[in-house]
Amino acid sequence: MEFFFYPSSVAVFGSFKKGAIAYEILGNIIEGGFEGDVTPVNPKGGEVEVANVRLKIEKKLEKNVDVAIIAIPAKFVPPLIDEIGDKVKGAVVISAGFSEVGNVDLEKELIEKARNKGVKVIGPNCAGIFGVHANFFGSFEVRVNKGGLALISQSGAFGGAALAMGNEEGIGFSAFVSYGNAADLTESDFLKYFADDKNTKVIALYIEGVKDGRKFIEALKYATSKKPVIVLKAGKSKSGSKAAQSHTGSMAGSYEIYRATFCQFNAIEVEEMEELFDAAKTFEMYESGGKRIAIITNSGGPGVLATDKAEKLGLEIAKLSEKTINELMEFLPPQCSVKNPVDLIADADYERYKKTIEILCRDENVDSLLIICVPPIFIPSEEIARAIIDAKCSKPIVVNFMAGDLVKNGIRLLDVHGFKNFLTPERAVRALKWLSLRKVFSNQDQFQ
Amino acid sequence: MEFFFYPSSVAVFGSFKKGAIAYEILGNIIEGGFEGDVTPVNPKGGEVEVANVRLKIEKKLEKNVDVAIIAIPAKFVPPLIDEIGDKVKGAVVISAGFSEVGNVDLEKELIEKARNKGVKVIGPNCAGIFGVHANFFGSFEVRVNKGGLALISQSGAFGGAALAMGNEEGIGFSAFVSYGNAADLTESDFLKYFADDKNTKVIALYIEGVKDGRKFIEALKYATSKKPVIVLKAGKSKSGSKAAQSHTGSMAGSYEIYRATFCQFNAIEVEEMEELFDAAKTFEMYESGGKRIAIITNSGGPGVLATDKAEKLGLEIAKLSEKTINELMEFLPPQCSVKNPVDLIADADYERYKKTIEILCRDENVDSLLIICVPPIFIPSEEIARAIIDAKCSKPIVVNFMAGDLVKNGIRLLDVHGFKNFLTPERAVRALKWLSLRKVFSNQDQFQ
Repeated sequence: MEFFFYPSSVAVFGSFKKGAIAYEILGNIIEGGFEGDVTPVNPKGGEVEVANVRLKIEKKLEKNVDVAIIAIPAKFVPPLIDEIGDKVKGAVVISAGFSEVGNVDLEKELIEKARNKGVKVIGPNCAGIFGVHANFFGSFEVRVNKGGLALISQSGAFGGAALAMGNEEGIGFSAFVSYGNAADLTESDFLKYFADDKNTKVIALYIEGVKDGRKFIEALKYATSKKPVIVLKAGKSKSGSKAAQSHTGSMAGSYEIYRATFCQFNAIEVEEMEELFDAAKTFEMYESGGKRIAIITNSGGPGVLATDKAEKLGLEIAKLSEKTINELMEFLPPQCSVKNPVDLIADADYERYKKTIEILCRDENVDSLLIICVPPIFIPSEEIARAIIDAKCSKPIVVNFMAGDLVKNGIRLLDVHGFKNFLTPERAVRALKWLSLRKVFSNQDQFQ
Repeated sequence: MEFFFYPSSVAVFGSFKKGAIAYEILGNIIEGGFEGDVTPVNPKGGEVEVANVRLKIEKKLEKNVDVAIIAIPAKFVPPLIDEIGDKVKGAVVISAGFSEVGNVDLEKELIEKARNKGVKVIGPNCAGIFGVHANFFGSFEVRVNKGGLALISQSGAFGGAALAMGNEEGIGFSAFVSYGNAADLTESDFLKYFADDKNTKVIALYIEGVKDGRKFIEALKYATSKKPVIVLKAGKSKSGSKAAQSHTGSMAGSYEIYRATFCQFNAIEVEEMEELFDAAKTFEMYESGGKRIAIITNSGGPGVLATDKAEKLGLEIAKLSEKTINELMEFLPPQCSVKNPVDLIADADYERYKKTIEILCRDENVDSLLIICVPPIFIPSEEIARAIIDAKCSKPIVVNFMAGDLVKNGIRLLDVHGFKNFLTPERAVRALKWLSLRKVFSNQDQFQ
C-alpha cells in the first residue's frame, strides 16, 4: 500500500474551476511541494493555474501513475475505473453518491471493476489522503507538519477538523487517510499498513463502526504489538449509534463489545476529540509508563487538582521511600512539602526543580513524574524548563506549565527538547493515565 | 466592601526594587491605568520609576487611603496595621509566613489589631485583588480584560494561571480576589459582595475548603439567587484532600458534603480547570436552559460525538415534532437527515442553516440548540456565522465551529454578536449541560 502514501506520480480527475474539489486538491498537491509527477485530467482539456504553476489538463490519462484521485460525479466513476484501471495502482475516490445515499449497486459496480483491474480503492465518499513525509497532500483538507502521527478517520469532516486542531496543538503527522464508505480498503488495512510504516510512531483511529470484526481484531492486535494505537469510537450511545448509522450507513454495533476489544487488544481508547491529541502527544514522547506517579509542583492548588484527577482515574500517588524523603528534606526549605505531591513553593528555581526530579526519579516506588510550574513573575519559565531538560531521569516526565504569555518561552524550549506541554494539570494527569494503560511486550511475549 | 474593588486611593507597602513583589504590584496598578491616588511606602523613602512614571516613596503613610496593599516580612505586618489602621479602610496582605507555615499566633495578632482599628483584611498569604472596572490591578498577576466574570480563588497560583488562561480564552473579568488564609474576609464574604456587584454577571470560585460551613451555605444561597455561581472544588480525593491540608492548612472536608451543598444550593460544579472557563463563557451568554437539545450539523462525525456526549451527560436528544420534520423535509435536500441530530450535509449554506435554526427553535420539544459547523473549503465560515446571528431564535444557542484557520473569521464574527465558540463538540455539549443544571427562580420562589 506504500504507493498511496509515498507515490511517485498522481493523476487528479475532476473539474479544475476555481473552488472545485479537484482544483483544490491539485492546489494542495502542488503547494505542498510534491516532487513526483502530477497530471490533471478532464475530458475538456485546457490548462489550469495553481500556486503560480500552469499545468496542461490532459483529456485522457495516457501514462501510468501510482495514484488516481477521483472527484467526478458518482455515476461516471465505475466507467473511469474501467478505462484507467490498467494504468493506475490505486484510486482515491472522493466522489459521494454511493452506498451512503442508498446507491449500493453503483458502489458494488465500482469495486468489481476495480478488483478486475487489480486497482486498490480508498473511499468512495472520502476526503482523501496525505503522505506527509512524501510531501503528498492528496486531499482538500488543510496541510499539516511532518511528524509521527498517522490519523485514520472514517468521517471526512472529523478528519479535516482534527488536522486543523492538530496543527494548532503542534502535532506532527506522518499520514492522514479518510476512508469514507470503506468499500475496498478499510480501517483494518490501514492499521496494518501504518504498523509497519517507518515514519509512523503513533496511530490514531476515529471509527463509528467496522464492517469485519474479525479482521479488525487481527489488525488491531498486530498494530498495537508494533506501536501505540489511539481510538476514538463514535456512536457509543443509543442516539449516537442511530446518528452514525444514518451518517455512514455503518452499524455502530454494541459499544460494550468495542470497548472490550480495545481494552483486550491494548488500544488506548479516548473519550473526546481533544483527548485524541493529548494522547498522541503523550505517545510521541513515551512508549508506556507505570501507575505510580510523583507530582512536583511550585503551587499548591494545581498540585491538588492533579492529585484529585489522578486518584479519580485510578492512578496511584506514589508513596515516596524514606530515603527519598530524607534526601528532599536535606536541601529543600522547610516550608516545602516533601510528601507526594512535592510542593517546592513559589520561589522554586532551577536547582530545586532539577534536584527534586533526579531524587524522585531514583525512587523505586515512582513510575513516572508530573511536573507542574506556575512561574512567579521573578522566575523566568525557561529556567524551570532548563531544569527539566537537564535533569538526569529515565522515567516518563509529563509537564504542565501554566500562565499564558509568562510561560510561552519555557514551553517552546521544552518542545525543542521533546517535552510537550499539557494545558492543565488534569490534562497532564490524563496523559500519565494513558501511558499506564499501554502494555509493552517484547514481540515474543505478545505472540505467546 | 466596594472600596476594595472600586478604590479611589491605594498605598503599597514593601520593597520597590525591580522584581520585588511590591514593585511589580505598583507597576501593575500604574500600567493598568488606575486613575485614583497611588502611594508607595517604604521606611527608606526615595523614588521609584515604573512604566515611565516616577513616584516619590513615602517613608510613612500620612494621608487616608481606601486600600493598603502590604508585601513586607510577616512579623512586621501586625505593627504596620496598628500604625496605619486609622488611615485605611482595608488591607490586602500579600505577605506569607502566617498560619500556613504554623505561625498561627502572628495571624491572630494581625487580625486582632485590624479589628480593633476597623480594618477589613484580605489574606494574608494571598496574590492580591483586581477591580477590573475601576482599572485597579492590585496584584502581581497578569492583567485581564473588562467583562462579567468575578474570580474568587483560595489558591494564588491557581488564580494567576486562571487569569492567564482566561485571557487566552477571551474571557472578560469584573474582579479577581485571591484570599489566601482567609483570616478575616472569606470566600463567603466575596460571594455575597459579588452577588450584588453590578459589573459581575457570573461568579467563579476555586476552593479547597471553607472554614465556616453555615456561613458559606448562606452566602452561596444568596449569590445563586442573583447570578450563576461556578465552583471548582479541589481536594476531592483522599490524597488531594491531604495535599490541600498541607497547602492552605484548611480542612478540605468530606467531598460528599460539598457536592450535596453545591447541588442543593444551585451552584454549577465543574470538574476541571478548563471547564471553569467553558462554564463562565456559557453563563455570560445565557441564564439557563432545558435538557432537551437539538443538534444541527453539516458533518456527521462531530454530530455523532456530540450526541454520544449529550446522552452520557444526561441530556435528552429532543424528539422533533411531526410539524418540524415536515417543515424540514420541505426545503432540505433529500440527502440531509431530518432526525435529531439534523445533518445539513457538507454544502449547507446560509439559508439552510438559518431556516433550520428557526424551525427547530419553534419546536416545543426543543429547549436549546447546538450548532456544529466544519465548513468545507468552498463555504466561508462567516456565512454560517451570519446565519446563526440572523436567525430569529429566542432559545439558547451554543456553537462549535471547527477547522483552525478556516473558521477564525466566523468565530470572530460570532463573538462580536455575543456567541462564544466552543472548541470541540463535546465541550459545547457540556455547556448545554451546565445551562440545564441552573435553576432560575423569581426572587419570590427562591425564598419560599
